[in-house]
Amino acid sequence: MNTRSEYDLLGNMDVPADALYGIQTLRAAQNFSITGVPISHFPELIKALAMVKAAAARTNQEMKLLTPEKADAIVYACQDLIQGQYHDQFIVDVIQGGAGTSTNMNANEVIANIALMKLGHEKGEYKYLHPNDDVNRSQSTNDAYPTAACLGIQFAADNFVPSLASLKEALEAKAREFAHIVKMGRTQLQDAVPMTLGQEFDAFAVTLGEDIDRISEACALLCEVNLGGTAIGTGINTPEGYAKLVVEKLATISTKPLVPASNLVEATSDMGAFVFFSGILKRLAIKLSKMSNDLRLLSSGPRTGLGEINLPPMQPGSSIMPGKVNPVIPEAMNQTAYQVIASDLAVTLAAEAGQLQLNAMEPMIIYNVLNSLKMLKEACQMLETRCIRGITANEAVCAGHVENSIGIITALVPYIGYANASRIANTALHTGSTVKSLVIEENLLTEEQVNILLSPQSMLSPSKVVI
Amino acid sequence: MNTRSEYDLLGNMDVPADALYGIQTLRAAQNFSITGVPISHFPELIKALAMVKAAAARTNQEMKLLTPEKADAIVYACQDLIQGQYHDQFIVDVIQGGAGTSTNMNANEVIANIALMKLGHEKGEYKYLHPNDDVNRSQSTNDAYPTAACLGIQFAADNFVPSLASLKEALEAKAREFAHIVKMGRTQLQDAVPMTLGQEFDAFAVTLGEDIDRISEACALLCEVNLGGTAIGTGINTPEGYAKLVVEKLATISTKPLVPASNLVEATSDMGAFVFFSGILKRLAIKLSKMSNDLRLLSSGPRTGLGEINLPPMQPGSSIMPGKVNPVIPEAMNQTAYQVIASDLAVTLAAEAGQLQLNAMEPMIIYNVLNSLKMLKEACQMLETRCIRGITANEAVCAGHVENSIGIITALVPYIGYANASRIANTALHTGSTVKSLVIEENLLTEEQVNILLSPQSMLSPSKVVI
Amino acid sequence: MNTRSEYDLLGNMDVPADALYGIQTLRAAQNFSITGVPISHFPELIKALAMVKAAAARTNQEMKLLTPEKADAIVYACQDLIQGQYHDQFIVDVIQGGAGTSTNMNANEVIANIALMKLGHEKGEYKYLHPNDDVNRSQSTNDAYPTAACLGIQFAADNFVPSLASLKEALEAKAREFAHIVKMGRTQLQDAVPMTLGQEFDAFAVTLGEDIDRISEACALLCEVNLGGTAIGTGINTPEGYAKLVVEKLATISTKPLVPASNLVEATSDMGAFVFFSGILKRLAIKLSKMSNDLRLLSSGPRTGLGEINLPPMQPGSSIMPGKVNPVIPEAMNQTAYQVIASDLAVTLAAEAGQLQLNAMEPMIIYNVLNSLKMLKEACQMLETRCIRGITANEAVCAGHVENSIGIITALVPYIGYANASRIANTALHTGSTVKSLVIEENLLTEEQVNILLSPQSMLSPSKVVI
Amino acid sequence: MNTRSEYDLLGNMDVPADALYGIQTLRAAQNFSITGVPISHFPELIKALAMVKAAAARTNQEMKLLTPEKADAIVYACQDLIQGQYHDQFIVDVIQGGAGTSTNMNANEVIANIALMKLGHEKGEYKYLHPNDDVNRSQSTNDAYPTAACLGIQFAADNFVPSLASLKEALEAKAREFAHIVKMGRTQLQDAVPMTLGQEFDAFAVTLGEDIDRISEACALLCEVNLGGTAIGTGINTPEGYAKLVVEKLATISTKPLVPASNLVEATSDMGAFVFFSGILKRLAIKLSKMSNDLRLLSSGPRTGLGEINLPPMQPGSSIMPGKVNPVIPEAMNQTAYQVIASDLAVTLAAEAGQLQLNAMEPMIIYNVLNSLKMLKEACQMLETRCIRGITANEAVCAGHVENSIGIITALVPYIGYANASRIANTALHTGSTVKSLVIEENLLTEEQVNILLSPQSMLSPSKVVI
Repeated sequence: MNTRSEYDLLGNMDVPADALYGIQTLRAAQNFSITGVPISHFPELIKALAMVKAAAARTNQEMKLLTPEKADAIVYACQDLIQGQYHDQFIVDVIQGGAGTSTNMNANEVIANIALMKLGHEKGEYKYLHPNDDVNRSQSTNDAYPTAACLGIQFAADNFVPSLASLKEALEAKAREFAHIVKMGRTQLQDAVPMTLGQEFDAFAVTLGEDIDRISEACALLCEVNLGGTAIGTGINTPEGYAKLVVEKLATISTKPLVPASNLVEATSDMGAFVFFSGILKRLAIKLSKMSNDLRLLSSGPRTGLGEINLPPMQPGSSIMPGKVNPVIPEAMNQTAYQVIASDLAVTLAAEAGQLQLNAMEPMIIYNVLNSLKMLKEACQMLETRCIRGITANEAVCAGHVENSIGIITALVPYIGYANASRIANTALHTGSTVKSLVIEENLLTEEQVNILLSPQSMLSPSKVVI
Repeated sequence: MNTRSEYDLLGNMDVPADALYGIQTLRAAQNFSITGVPISHFPELIKALAMVKAAAARTNQEMKLLTPEKADAIVYACQDLIQGQYHDQFIVDVIQGGAGTSTNMNANEVIANIALMKLGHEKGEYKYLHPNDDVNRSQSTNDAYPTAACLGIQFAADNFVPSLASLKEALEAKAREFAHIVKMGRTQLQDAVPMTLGQEFDAFAVTLGEDIDRISEACALLCEVNLGGTAIGTGINTPEGYAKLVVEKLATISTKPLVPASNLVEATSDMGAFVFFSGILKRLAIKLSKMSNDLRLLSSGPRTGLGEINLPPMQPGSSIMPGKVNPVIPEAMNQTAYQVIASDLAVTLAAEAGQLQLNAMEPMIIYNVLNSLKMLKEACQMLETRCIRGITANEAVCAGHVENSIGIITALVPYIGYANASRIANTALHTGSTVKSLVIEENLLTEEQVNILLSPQSMLSPSKVVI
Repeated sequence: MNTRSEYDLLGNMDVPADALYGIQTLRAAQNFSITGVPISHFPELIKALAMVKAAAARTNQEMKLLTPEKADAIVYACQDLIQGQYHDQFIVDVIQGGAGTSTNMNANEVIANIALMKLGHEKGEYKYLHPNDDVNRSQSTNDAYPTAACLGIQFAADNFVPSLASLKEALEAKAREFAHIVKMGRTQLQDAVPMTLGQEFDAFAVTLGEDIDRISEACALLCEVNLGGTAIGTGINTPEGYAKLVVEKLATISTKPLVPASNLVEATSDMGAFVFFSGILKRLAIKLSKMSNDLRLLSSGPRTGLGEINLPPMQPGSSIMPGKVNPVIPEAMNQTAYQVIASDLAVTLAAEAGQLQLNAMEPMIIYNVLNSLKMLKEACQMLETRCIRGITANEAVCAGHVENSIGIITALVPYIGYANASRIANTALHTGSTVKSLVIEENLLTEEQVNILLSPQSMLSPSKVVI
Repeated sequence: MNTRSEYDLLGNMDVPADALYGIQTLRAAQNFSITGVPISHFPELIKALAMVKAAAARTNQEMKLLTPEKADAIVYACQDLIQGQYHDQFIVDVIQGGAGTSTNMNANEVIANIALMKLGHEKGEYKYLHPNDDVNRSQSTNDAYPTAACLGIQFAADNFVPSLASLKEALEAKAREFAHIVKMGRTQLQDAVPMTLGQEFDAFAVTLGEDIDRISEACALLCEVNLGGTAIGTGINTPEGYAKLVVEKLATISTKPLVPASNLVEATSDMGAFVFFSGILKRLAIKLSKMSNDLRLLSSGPRTGLGEINLPPMQPGSSIMPGKVNPVIPEAMNQTAYQVIASDLAVTLAAEAGQLQLNAMEPMIIYNVLNSLKMLKEACQMLETRCIRGITANEAVCAGHVENSIGIITALVPYIGYANASRIANTALHTGSTVKSLVIEENLLTEEQVNILLSPQSMLSPSKVVI
């Protein structure tokens, strides 16, 4: 293998000749191979890092800390990364010691080498443009890296939210399709009172819609960045006015409404915004899991379960039981949700482990948030296209449940009185008769009246019923 | 023991004659004794339940579903509870099956019996005023109970936030007191660059202040209530317009800006607002634990630790080691924080376990949120009064650390160059000399210049330094 | 209030004259009031502490470090505590800073004062017998407290296991009662193949039985104690041979097979045995929760659920829905299980927070383990007596499910072939016919043969069926 | 792309012509792409699945359910997989719905096609040898898959344990190297009593050694397998004696002491053994994290921390602070530990979600356990080779800490009395003098005596000291 020699604080090392990364990246890659997942797994993070480096370069140029030539070359390199090129050069493992220094240096080195080539030099000729002195100028890992994370998570959220919105729309479409189907609502798994299948799906849609708002609020917290704080938030080694200016430029480049954190020392050690974001993903996971549980319950059967809906069959369910089809898609969503909930614990543990002026566990916090977003995106698309869109209702089963249920008596209480209601409920339970037949038989209400009281309209607005 | 006989769906039972609760409360008390903690442990919940019952009574009165006499008696009873009387009659365990029915019935029965006495009847003479038919009129546990929880948690938050604000102020006071003390900042527990001890305490204050805002936002989500939705959110057995009116009245009584949830079916089964609230408490717990860890680290010693600050001694630390004093207050805060983080997991598990139109695990969700608030309140008061207010600084130690540190070289880089800086850092590390003495010795800077660069002013605003 | 004055390292304080505890207990009670739960909530811990103190007193006596008179008085006091007296004197909160020093000192002071009275002195006359110098002789909190915890948890486990065993037996009794009832087994909530209801309950019994063994193994790990290690495990300030002797005596007193840990330094800082024990309780909680979920699912209905079993009604289920009865007992078990799982996280967080030679979070670790045991004991008794013992089967529903199911075709595959089976499954699903009728109609098997294949005997041992 | 056509219950599909997998694998790959990690990431699982299939084939052959030709071909194919060939054909995502059916079918299809080629047929010519009828004969996913998981986890543990043992040995080597270095022990981060640095490292070694035993015990639980239980544990569609025979053969092939579970119905739905195993990994993670925290604390500095040890520098620590080196290796271990703890929560959530006769979430349980083992293996190797082996001690710092400490007074209490000790401790704290100088100055002990009492020998065995 062709190599070039590079050196750092710890000495010399051979780097593959065609690598855009340099010695510090290589050391990190050798030090860490815990997960086997490189940071290139999350292109939004690479893109965000490049934007930070571009904003810093232009600010340094404006403040006379970088020549226009160097700044241009750096920005040129950053644009390549923003457009998705060279991501395979980001080889460091997502779990790494050093509070993100390795990721930051991977970016510094790759950008430096692209810029060097642009300027007509060889890779590794850092005397012409240096990863630390030029690309990392006026920055520390401790501000550049979490700022990039704040931005990268927002980009990943931008990628995810449309999938969630589309899932919500699919549920709304089903809510409209099933608006006329009356069924029994259940509380504590016991027959309660009637509702429509449309209401059930609408509630799913509404609850997911709320979390689209929550994600948006969580992104707002990520707009307060600590760029300009350098090592510990005191802004050491930056010129006056740098922090304000660099964040302005980054806001422009990223089109995100970034502002400098009000207290950079706090912002450098605090993981609160990531904890908040992760908590929102956990909340969403809880909802998606609850909904998946409901879908599996409502489609249980075909003969010995609730059987009110059918999920589209996606694959044979059993090698030993002929004809069996299982609810594999909601099951996969449940598992995704559990993984996201577990990731939130990983974030919690890492956030609590911060010490004094920095949290050394930032890399795994960022990894877990980005990974949850990625998994949720895949899972929401899966759930929408391979399950929700194809759900059909078993109208007859739903109707039969209502007809046979004793719970419907509740809807009749205002018209026949609590005493009659209790007596009829008891008779129904022990004789097996239906409430409807008993009420009509006893001339408490006419068949027509009962039909009105249990119609879809009545279910949607029981308080507007007139008989 | 004197008793009176009451009956319900399952038959007759003897209730203590002087009990304000009735048969359903008694059954629940016998069924559940898991924790030994009765719901009266959380007076805010009792108060909130009474407000819900009072609002319902006035609405029922206005809608002609309750006579003015009954409504007056019910409201009278509710006011007693709101003022803190009779809370000892709320005997059901905080962990209970039935999705809160037992808590709701405990309230219904106690209110009915107080009202009966007010009306000149005996306890238990429910023919004159009935726990279900009158006190619970137009309600279901499934809307009355979570609405009370939304309100009760807000009351508990109102109780807690002043303690948190006061802790924040104590930290700010220390920040001012320590504003002039220069010390070394540390990243990854390694010497980094200088800062002031005041900045360190200010960062603690700022980070807690943010969570006061988050709690306020979390309370806003709790203002969307499902009262009026009754059993499953369809509003069965309520007159038209009831939901809007009862929530208006409850908003007035509670002075909280409550509004009906936009989708009552969703609101009845979804635990999202509680999950969100619990997540915020977890975030705060993470911050409090991180701060406590820092306090214990900074006060470690007295001879073999960092020793930069002294915590006030609160109790002898050891029976075997003479003179030992331990950081017992931050240690207790750490443990409180861990308990709160664990409670958030309990909430997560319970929220995910909801099925179809209701979450049967509501009681433990509500218990855990209220308990976390209660513990955090106690712990914040403890931390403020028994620790933060009494902290003193070891100025000489802080100054010695700066003087001996190699990290201060970073502040000199813009003035002596990176090459000189690295060389001097290396010499200092291996010879044991200080950076300051080496820089002066080599005539790179004058003593006066070095003193300026490492002064508190410079630390606060390194980018404004002129030498 | 009458008081007596006591003093310690931090100065003088008035202690209630009739209190058996002293100044250090009082300071701790004032410092900590996080949970409101005093350590007397866990009598097993008090008892275990007293045994540790008694063993130490006799060992000190034997090694001439304590006069026979003092040793006798201390042992006399310990016996009072072991028999359950004076537990109300243990007033310190379960969450406390100081790694258990306050609990240890509470014991030292109470024992000293009982002993003083026995010797004819006044409470507080420590010159005759001292909490530290005599009761705590040759001990440190850091060995006495965790050793007591190891013992106290075993006592609590001894209390709990019979409840678990009794629950298991109740399930076995139901397994026998339901041995003849054939029903459909379900995988992934979809109809699978037949089994008996007895097998279902037997599986519950077996799975709990396994955890009785696991608890026993976890207790074995708690038999390795660090008593004699004093402050950090080096045994400082104990005479040679003390550790071996004191553990022997404690084993005799407690009747538990205690041995000294092989490495006392490790044993003093490591929380592994508690983590292990808590993990076993979590495992059991998972099983109990899964079983409760199954019970609620199998009893869902009465008309729109699976309806295969009936849980005994324990309380009315709804104020708004006449006749509704809910599965409140398994719901309370679910919530208990979630609380136990959450407690395991609290233990995890606290265990990870240990630093260097000690884990300062021991009190909350011990609290959570003891509290989980206590809650599980209550909940298992509740589940057994208020649910399992009263469960009845709906034989007709079970039989109907089998008859209507398509899954039973699997049992016929070896006799009619996979091709026939698939064809018949398909016909059954789309026509609504039963598998049984189609098979007989097509003369593939006689009615008698089908009846044999689907009989309870065949279900229990499908591989032994001969037709 | 060349394709061949295959069909299943849901219809026809084109499979890449050179694929060894078939239609069901392809459907699963299209259905699930949550993590992007294919099951081939865990070769131990593939190997274990192949062993299960081989054991089943030989058993079926012996019971005349498979011809010797088919059995030979299947076993031949399994051996290829066991030797590591064709693992790239296992393309299904680790998170998948269907309780492992997709993984099982992936194995069935790959084995069938290898066997077909061996028999001289084309891939996909299943009429000669069928994935379900032949490879999966007498099996269900519900027994074959968890049995393979039990085995695969044991293989992964076999891979991991040597790394853990080697880390333990490295710590023992350091314990020997540092046996003579006296230092101050710390409790609650406060100066306690002396010990040796060797004792500190020995405690690390001992605590890890215990978990090697725990892993071995956890593997024992995984030796109870449910193979032969088929769909729900009733053994439907297996001949009499099959279960016993197939497990015997699998034990032989795998060289693991496998036995059939005593109750196959219980064993099919219960995840207890995986929960137990995961709990042990969590326990180990807690220990590794605590140890890493200690290493970072002990090496904190170089000038403003404890500075008792030096970790080998692995990479430059900062782009902005010249000369900074950070403890990146223990930091990466901390993060790995947090990820493992989080995975245990994922396992917990999934295990609790089992319903009735099966746990549909098995795939993510198995994924998380295998992934934790893989990450821990990498991290332990990293910690050993890149950190522990290169640690050096700062003897002078350790000695200085002892000399300056007040805590050493504890060791002198038996010789100078508690009263003298307290007085001298107080004087030392407030004057800055050392305990040693004060004791000698006051003629309480000679310098020689003090030196003996604080020598390494005394530290190791304080109870054996004679002066």
